Amino acid sequence: MKSYSIAKSRRVRSSPYTSRIEKQGVTAYTVYNHMLLPAAFGSIEDSCNHLKKNVQVWDVAAERQVEIIGKDAAKLVQLMTCRDLSKSKIGRCYYCPIIDDQGNLVNDPVILKLAEDRWWISIADSDVIFFAKGLASGNDFKVQIFEPSVDIIAIQGPKSFDLMEKVFGRKIKELKFFGFDFYEFKGVKHLIARSGWSKQGGFEVYVENTQSGLDLYDYFFEIGKEFNLKPGCPNLIERIESGLLSYGNDFDNNDNPFECGFEKYVNLDSDVSFLGKEKLRKIKNEGIKRKLMGVFIDIDKINITKSIDITDDKGVFIGELRSACYSPHFKKAIGIAMINEPYCKASATGTMEIDGKSLAVKVCDLPFI
Amino acid sequence: MKSYSIAKSRRVRSSPYTSRIEKQGVTAYTVYNHMLLPAAFGSIEDSCNHLKKNVQVWDVAAERQVEIIGKDAAKLVQLMTCRDLSKSKIGRCYYCPIIDDQGNLVNDPVILKLAEDRWWISIADSDVIFFAKGLASGNDFKVQIFEPSVDIIAIQGPKSFDLMEKVFGRKIKELKFFGFDFYEFKGVKHLIARSGWSKQGGFEVYVENTQSGLDLYDYFFEIGKEFNLKPGCPNLIERIESGLLSYGNDFDNNDNPFECGFEKYVNLDSDVSFLGKEKLRKIKNEGIKRKLMGVFIDIDKINITKSIDITDDKGVFIGELRSACYSPHFKKAIGIAMINEPYCKASATGTMEIDGKSLAVKVCDLPFI
Repeated sequence: MKSYSIAKSRRVRSSPYTSRIEKQGVTAYTVYNHMLLPAAFGSIEDSCNHLKKNVQVWDVAAERQVEIIGKDAAKLVQLMTCRDLSKSKIGRCYYCPIIDDQGNLVNDPVILKLAEDRWWISIADSDVIFFAKGLASGNDFKVQIFEPSVDIIAIQGPKSFDLMEKVFGRKIKELKFFGFDFYEFKGVKHLIARSGWSKQGGFEVYVENTQSGLDLYDYFFEIGKEFNLKPGCPNLIERIESGLLSYGNDFDNNDNPFECGFEKYVNLDSDVSFLGKEKLRKIKNEGIKRKLMGVFIDIDKINITKSIDITDDKGVFIGELRSACYSPHFKKAIGIAMINEPYCKASATGTMEIDGKSLAVKVCDLPFI
Repeated sequence: MKSYSIAKSRRVRSSPYTSRIEKQGVTAYTVYNHMLLPAAFGSIEDSCNHLKKNVQVWDVAAERQVEIIGKDAAKLVQLMTCRDLSKSKIGRCYYCPIIDDQGNLVNDPVILKLAEDRWWISIADSDVIFFAKGLASGNDFKVQIFEPSVDIIAIQGPKSFDLMEKVFGRKIKELKFFGFDFYEFKGVKHLIARSGWSKQGGFEVYVENTQSGLDLYDYFFEIGKEFNLKPGCPNLIERIESGLLSYGNDFDNNDNPFECGFEKYVNLDSDVSFLGKEKLRKIKNEGIKRKLMGVFIDIDKINITKSIDITDDKGVFIGELRSACYSPHFKKAIGIAMINEPYCKASATGTMEIDGKSLAVKVCDLPFI
């Protein structure tokens, strides 16, 4: 596939770490929340293998925060998500589908509860800030809404725990999954969560003090050799194998949370009020007609840039492939597809056409691994 | 400057014309409204010179539409913009700053009035759809809000009028600036506006029938030779010389419309109600402390990827450069900068540092040409 340059500008924001990753060999970018997000450091297969065994530091500043603070902050945050946050705790992260009044998805952020009246919505690629501002204004909520200066560094991979211990001390290993706390680096406190966009384990440092974040970034690479530390980025292969869904790729504002396997985050029986609750109840009662599924594809190389139709043996549309990669683990291509009833079940089969070739598709449950 | 690849995926949407422009030699993309927007076909200087004398066809599908339809559609559209639309007419386009409740900018779309209860907001690069959904839900407005399937082709340049006449007949030349109407191509009606993101004259075809749009795209190139037609895209040099501002580059949600020279679209004395009206009145009364200005920079090559500080002769910050290019017309670099009082006036001077070199900066009014 021919490659094209990315045209940089202020609108496609650089991160504080951009000049560093460019020295370290980043080769491709995507744009995420109007910001450069590294997409490859050479081969993504090599990077995937490295990530599964070692540790990587990622510039994921493009995971922007929407800060909501004030008297009605909790009310606004709850209004936006179908997940019941009434028992949420300060110091915890919550994966929360954001839903519009039609019951469709707006985003799937991790929400951090910093205080009863202060929250960070750590967003996927859509402008949740304007959804929040519209809702706050329309409902006359007493809140302030803004994008704070936070540029996340992720430390991912099985050796991330030892690397982080070396920098922040033993206490960091006690942090529970999706918990966060504050840890000191050379006199500066950083909010650190045990989270990240891989299933290989790791942490995210929510850097507010940019200079200290840059020092920390450099320090990781100063001491990282013994852990075989490399720079990296969210890895297409690892995330598909792990079934980590991506807003914009696997689902978007035309899909509802039941179609995307988010049932456990749709708390219709709770007392809390949120947008689209009645619509979601109706969708649940009527039953969904399609669902995100895994697929195996009989091909040893794949690179998709848009949805590809999947058909049955009579050529009738039964679904669409939305993400895909070649998986070295399975030694074939795998992907994430929105598949219609009755084909959205493991072992259903279909056909797909790529570059004029007809390919067999086999449906499976998510995640692959 | 080293170039980096753009990683394509479904999330960074292709347009119906993407495969065509790739055959025609597009070399760089940016991402705009989560979609690929061509940024260069080889040299942007050559492309700028060609655009000023001839005609180009552009894939600007990334100018997405937000459709607002229903009983309260006009009320919602008016709530979002500080421009008085009470006397707006069906068949006209309106350049409208979209404002949040703090009086800051959310977007600067062209709004098309299709009917009293049906509008298209043709957006710059931010998710206005979620702002509209939040406001509609909070205010309990009776409207439907969605992104219609519209992929714009722009025809820009002085010879665009003759090219368009050859395709659509003489009537198209009667279309007034920022007017739109429906014109037939091989049996399919297309909404065409006299508008576009250059100051060289031209049209935008709001393609709803994708196949007819592709046929039209191909037909332009079939008959375009006599007009020296070439493929192109919004041109950095031409747009800066013309003072066409870009949301995300020259201004964003941290800026207000007075700072950006949008005074004539801020109708505080009208009876209509819109978001941030009182805040804007306060800002106007207190006076602004900075303003977007043009700058000349003493250098023969420039490529900026983020804001660059401008200082006075004592090294004190007086503003920041936000967009810039080398202008063959002026034979020097020009740019758009947010400049503090009292320096935001023509012929003020400052200093800037690029690649360790100190450069003289001269402030001027916009547009340059």
